[in-house]
Formats: sequence, C-alpha cells, structure tokens
Amino acid sequence: MADFILMEKPTLPKGSRDFGPAQMAKRQYILDRIKAVFQKYGFQPLETPAMENLTALTGKYGDEGDQLLFKILNSGDFLKDADQAKLEARDSKLLTTDISEKGLRYDLTVPFARYVVMNRHEITFPFKRYQIQPVWRADRPQKGRYREFYQCDADVVGTDSLLCEADIVLMITEVFSQLHIQDYTIKINHRGILSGLAEICGAKENEKPLFVAIDKLDKIGEEKIKEELRARGFQEASLTTLFQILNFKGNTQQKIDFLSAKFSASENGRKGLSDFQKVLDLLNGYQFSPKHLEFDISLARGLSYYTGCIFEVKINNVAIGSVSGGGRYDNLTGSFGLEGVSGIGISFGVDRLYDAMEELKLFPSEAMISSTVMIAHFDNETMRYGLQVAARLRAAGVATELYPDVSKIKKQMEYANKKMIPYVIVIGADEMKDGQLTLKRMHTGEQEKKTLEEILLEIKK
Amino acid sequence: MADFILMEKPTLPKGSRDFGPAQMAKRQYILDRIKAVFQKYGFQPLETPAMENLTALTGKYGDEGDQLLFKILNSGDFLKDADQAKLEARDSKLLTTDISEKGLRYDLTVPFARYVVMNRHEITFPFKRYQIQPVWRADRPQKGRYREFYQCDADVVGTDSLLCEADIVLMITEVFSQLHIQDYTIKINHRGILSGLAEICGAKENEKPLFVAIDKLDKIGEEKIKEELRARGFQEASLTTLFQILNFKGNTQQKIDFLSAKFSASENGRKGLSDFQKVLDLLNGYQFSPKHLEFDISLARGLSYYTGCIFEVKINNVAIGSVSGGGRYDNLTGSFGLEGVSGIGISFGVDRLYDAMEELKLFPSEAMISSTVMIAHFDNETMRYGLQVAARLRAAGVATELYPDVSKIKKQMEYANKKMIPYVIVIGADEMKDGQLTLKRMHTGEQEKKTLEEILLEIKK
Repeated sequence: MADFILMEKPTLPKGSRDFGPAQMAKRQYILDRIKAVFQKYGFQPLETPAMENLTALTGKYGDEGDQLLFKILNSGDFLKDADQAKLEARDSKLLTTDISEKGLRYDLTVPFARYVVMNRHEITFPFKRYQIQPVWRADRPQKGRYREFYQCDADVVGTDSLLCEADIVLMITEVFSQLHIQDYTIKINHRGILSGLAEICGAKENEKPLFVAIDKLDKIGEEKIKEELRARGFQEASLTTLFQILNFKGNTQQKIDFLSAKFSASENGRKGLSDFQKVLDLLNGYQFSPKHLEFDISLARGLSYYTGCIFEVKINNVAIGSVSGGGRYDNLTGSFGLEGVSGIGISFGVDRLYDAMEELKLFPSEAMISSTVMIAHFDNETMRYGLQVAARLRAAGVATELYPDVSKIKKQMEYANKKMIPYVIVIGADEMKDGQLTLKRMHTGEQEKKTLEEILLEIKK
Repeated sequence: MADFILMEKPTLPKGSRDFGPAQMAKRQYILDRIKAVFQKYGFQPLETPAMENLTALTGKYGDEGDQLLFKILNSGDFLKDADQAKLEARDSKLLTTDISEKGLRYDLTVPFARYVVMNRHEITFPFKRYQIQPVWRADRPQKGRYREFYQCDADVVGTDSLLCEADIVLMITEVFSQLHIQDYTIKINHRGILSGLAEICGAKENEKPLFVAIDKLDKIGEEKIKEELRARGFQEASLTTLFQILNFKGNTQQKIDFLSAKFSASENGRKGLSDFQKVLDLLNGYQFSPKHLEFDISLARGLSYYTGCIFEVKINNVAIGSVSGGGRYDNLTGSFGLEGVSGIGISFGVDRLYDAMEELKLFPSEAMISSTVMIAHFDNETMRYGLQVAARLRAAGVATELYPDVSKIKKQMEYANKKMIPYVIVIGADEMKDGQLTLKRMHTGEQEKKTLEEILLEIKK
C-alpha cells in the first residue's frame, strides 16, 4: 500500500497525545468502571463546553494558573478593536484581553460552579454530578505531564451532610476493588485538624507556609521541613510541638484521643476531630472495613480551597504520586456570586491510574476492544459464503468481521493476531460443502471443525 | 440554601452548550448504541487531541473553512516575534501566523488522516477506526448549529474492498434498528455514476456546478435547477438529457438497466454502476433486506471528496436534514504526503439524531441515568439504619442513594421524583423494629411493606 511523497511530516502539538485502539481500550476499561461506581452512588453525568469565557476562568487559579490558560484568538478581524498603545508597546499581556475573550477549560471545577450558578433554579439540590472530560494547561510538558489530559470528578453540592464524606470513601474503595488494585491507602485528614495544629504551634496567622511544608513530609522528611519553617520564622518550641504530633504513632482512635487532649483550646481542631469521628461512625454504620484508611495529620493537599475533610489516595509500592484526591469546600460558587453552597468532591487521575495499572499488569487481555471473530477465506466464492456466516454471528450479537480482501491466509491471520481477535473461522471449499467450519482459537493455536451452532455455543460462553 | 450576591452573571460562549444530566442520559443512549454497532463490525476506538498544529489544519477545508478554525493564541509573550510591519498595518490575517500556531480540530477526518500517516508503520491495515469527539467551528450560531458539536465517525482505510460499502449499509440499518427509528431512507449513489451523468450531459469539464445543482433537487425542484444550470452555460439539450435521467421512475434494478444503456460511452459511469451492482450483490449475500435503500442518482453531497459510493440517511416525516452520511474517498492522506490510501467512512450527526428522536418520542424513560433506589428516613436513627440497607443494595449492584440530610419526607420525595428515581424505601421506627421496609414505586405511587430480600427480587427483575 501507499506511496509516500516526501514532505514535512505531520506532528502533534507538544504535550498532546493520540490514543490509539490499544490505549483507548485500557482507558475505557478504567473510565467505565469509575463511571459505573459514580452512578451506583447516585451521581449523574454533566458535560460543559471546552471553551469558557475568559471572564469565567481568569482569577480562579491564581496568577500562575492564569498564565497557563490556553486562550482562543477572537474570530475575524481581531485587531480591529485592539488598543493602539498596547500594539505599539508590543505588550502581549495587556493586548490579550483585546484580542481574546475565550479560553479552554483548565479544570472541571470552575465550569461546574458556573453551571450550578447558571442553572440554580432548575437543579435539584443536593446535586450529585460526575464529569469526565479533558482539560488543557499550557504547562511545560514533561514525563507524565501533558497539556491535554482527562479529569474525572464527582461532586455533591448543596448539603454539608457528612454522609457525602463516607460515600466518597466507599466510592474510592469500590473503584479500586473494580480495578483489582489491592495495595493502596486512602489518606484522610480535616482542614479543622490542620488549623488546630497551626493554633497549638502558634502559627494561627501563618498557616499557609506550615501546611505547604508538612504536606511534603513524606517526600523531604523532618529535618528539611524544620529548616524550611525556621526560615519562615517558626520557633523551636513550635517545631517540637509540631513533630511531637506528626510523629505520634498509634491507630486512628489513639490519634484522635491524643489530638483531643491537645486541642482543648482549639475550636477548629475540635470541630475537625468531631467531623472526622462522625465520618468514621457512618462508615461503621455501613459496616465498612477501614483497612485501607489512614488518618494522616500531615495531609494538606497544598494550597487548596478545602474547608472540611481532605482525601488523598496512593497506590503502595508504585512510584507514582497520588491517583485520587478531594475534599470538602464551603464556597464553590462564591466567585460567581452565589454564596453558601457547600460541596465535596473527589477526582481520579486517569493517566496515573493507567500507568500504575500497566506497572502492576492489571489490565485483562479482554480489555482490548476488538472483534470476537474474524472470518478468513480463500477466494471470492468462500468469501461470499462468509457473508451469511458473518450475518448469523452478528445477529447473535457476536462482534464479527469478514476479512475484506482476497489475500493469503497468512496475511489474514496476521491481521487477526495483531488486532487480538480471539477466534478465526476459516472457510474453504470443504467447509462450504459440508457446513463444518474450521474454528481456530488464536490463544492456543489449536483448530477444530464445528458447525456454526457449536461455534456460537463455544464463543458465547 | 445560598445567598446570591449580585454581580455579573456567568454566561456561556455563544454557540456552546452545557449538557445536564437529562440531556447527557439521552446523548449517552444514542452514542452507546452507535458505539456498540461500530464495535460489532470490527471498528476500534481512536481519540486525537483537541488542538492540532495549524500547519495540519490550514488548507484542508477551503478558504471558508480556514476562516472558521478556532486558533489558539501562543502562550507567553506571543508578540515577541511578531512582525512589526504586520502589527503596524493592523493586519489580523497576516499577523495570525505569527501569534498562533495551534487550532482546535474542525472535523475528525483530518486528525484521523494525520494519525494514519504518523502511525503508518504500526497500524494493521485495513484499519477500521471509530472516533466520537467534539469539533469546533467559528460559524455564526443559529438554531441547530453550534460552535462545539460532536462528530461520530467510522472509517476503514487501506482497502478498496466493496465489502466495506456493504458493511456500512448494514451498520446504518443496525443503528437505526437499535434506536427504534423505523421510517428512514438510506440514499446511495456513486461518484462514477455522477461522472457518467456529467459526461452524457456534455459537462465532463464542468462537473462541479452540475453536482452542486442536482444535489438540491429535493429542496428547490427541477425548474430552479434548470435556471441555475442555464446561467452556468448548460444547453437545453443537456438539460433535457439530465432530467430524462433524474426523472426516471423505477426500482433499483430498472434504474441500473436504464443507466447501463445510457452509459455505453462512459467508462466512469459503467464503473460506478458495476461497483454499485457489486455492493447490492454483497448485501444480497448477507441476506439483507434492502427496503430502506434508495438509489438516488441526484445524491452528490455537495463538493465532497468522495470518489466511489456515496451515502446519505434521512429520517422520513421529520423536518430535520440528513442524520448520517459518508462515502468512499481515494486519497485520505494525500495532503499529508501519503498517497494511495483508499478509505470509506460514515458519520452520524448526534445533535440531529437527538432532535429527531425527541420529536418521535423515542427515548425510553429508562434512558435517565439515576439511582434505582433512594432511601428516605425521619431522623438520625432511621438514617443510620438506612446505611446498612444502602450497603446491602449496593453490594447487590443496585444504584442506591441515602438522602443525605434529615429533612421532611415531602422534600425527600420531591428529590427522588425530580431525579426520576423509580423506587423509594422509607425507613421509620416501625420499619426498624420489624425489618419490613416500606417500598414506594414512584411511577404508580403505590407502596407496600416488604423485606429487603423481597425488595431486591422486585428491583432486579
């Protein structure tokens, strides 16, 4: 096939990927299972457009985030209304607002908040939605970091019931069970507990650097964190108190008891512990086994907007960061003018789950999306006989393809093999005569003569 | 819930849409069925990134298409390397190439061609891929025309076997059968037949205006087409010959015989008829009933790049244009330098199918994606009892949600009702005592006391 005329070869934009059939099948395998779990817990699908008005996006992700937004050039004569001074100054930043009014979504949370505000009169609250769509970030591409990638979020808004927290733990557990990932840890913490920690370390007014630092405990260790906090003006006494708590060893109940005593003077801390205790009680009511759950006092998930429980999931013994995370936030829609909408969400990182499952060899070979049967033939006559065989198989719901050209059997078999088609039916002159078709099982290589009815019985098993 | 602080209300960019849960469920209903049919015929999924290099997109869709491409502003200081003269001239068109190097995909065909060329050494040909993704066009938005919309394509490349044509007819038929659309017509024609028609009308060198004109036969009628063609320099004798053919009445075989005689001097025409006859023979071999098939000599699908069979599907008695179309093209990848890759494709218009199915009331109520059971309760104690009930139902695979707040029963029922949840289990003090739960069937409003086992039996039916 095909002459190739030398010319500039087509390329993909940096940081973007095609997903061919094999990758699609595996991604679909993951996403179908996550989707099924979301639906089992009452979440409903939402999709929002790729482009949002820049007024909706800008200012939501900090200065750095604003830089990373992909902006769409206005259509037509976009320079017509551009400010002459900005043009003359060649000031890209200032000119942007004149020539671009739309951007690509940066995450699924802001579009969701926008949707909730725009549709608040039609939505039935509490609103449980899931959303699985790509997002775009003009980040520097590197291993495992792409400019287009899927997010996979489920959120409940319009209730502060801690049942949502418990359901999220259940959902995470069920997703991992469905994906056959066995060795993982759901880390859980609470913003109130973090605030309590800050208070008893004398850092009530200086929370952020504390949270940023301790969130890295796993990665950089105690000494580096102490150095970082000393440089931020933390006193030795505070650091001693801090690590007395962070280094406390015990099971969840022992940790709670230990912190209760420490938090006698911290209302935030006590509220955090009480919420957390209630979530554990609800999980207990669900008769849930908390073996994957770990109360991690150092879990802060960076500078996030969480106000209640915080979650993060790690697959153990795989060199991949967290594969899922989330938490409760009290003010999802505030930036769009709608106050007091409490919500809680969880997000699964599809790319990381994919990489981890590859490493753990957890994709079953059936994940491949391909025909179940290919019909091979020798000439126009046997191919024509194959038409009715294909029709019968398809009518029985069996994904079937007839090799479309008259070719060498070897070539047809190679095609079936590369497409990972498990069964090939070979039709030759003999088969046409006696109606006994040759069934070749591609996994084992063995072949056998059978009637179409017998073949259907074997395949549909 | 929720104070609303007055501020500029968020909006969506013109021509774009959110798909809320009810719409998503219906769209999913359509797409799942199309996908299943594609897979049943051996097609495998592909996804390409939203952004393509403008070098890959520009020049593929004509001047008008180039205007309609959404272009991405380069990140960072995009004016740095912009040409001073272009800036001073305020020439938007010329400046574009300096400040933008990526665009959003305009269709799925060009990205597919790019993928085939980039991966030609790994792909197993014939390559059967399907692709269901949004595309973007900076068109003027109007009723039924959006700036972001889904395309849903299946193509085979790397074979010129007419079996692909026959399979496409089968696939269309199966999609419509799955969607319960009964009154529809698959129009079929062949580019060779159109060329033959042009030749015997003396328009061999003037094909395009002829095809454009006759493609509108259904819409504007014979007289208007004659006017249009006279203005293009067509002679009366040609027009008489043309309409003698277009107005020929008869079944498919009669049309073929009639044209065979006319095309004695047209090689293109004879090749077209012969291909078409072979496709009909293959369909016959499949024991396919051609009742929805119509040989339409006027079908040209505008100025498309088709070189063989051409398809178009219309739902009858619904005021919506064609809902599916496609055909064979001989040179998919030529513009990327790879010659001689023959392919054939079919595309389904999801938005139009959606509208037609709404009009025909073909969406089943089960299409709604929602919980099967909601558990209602009266207080913390009954809610807690509900936890184990929810756990049991979910363990049995039943999508279940527990109303998350202690609220009036009326409010809980309204929630279930709006979410179209078919069953509500009400747990009160009595139910807790005797283990008999109240099951309310929301469709009929009746309720009954049952054990959880009995409820499971009823629901799983």
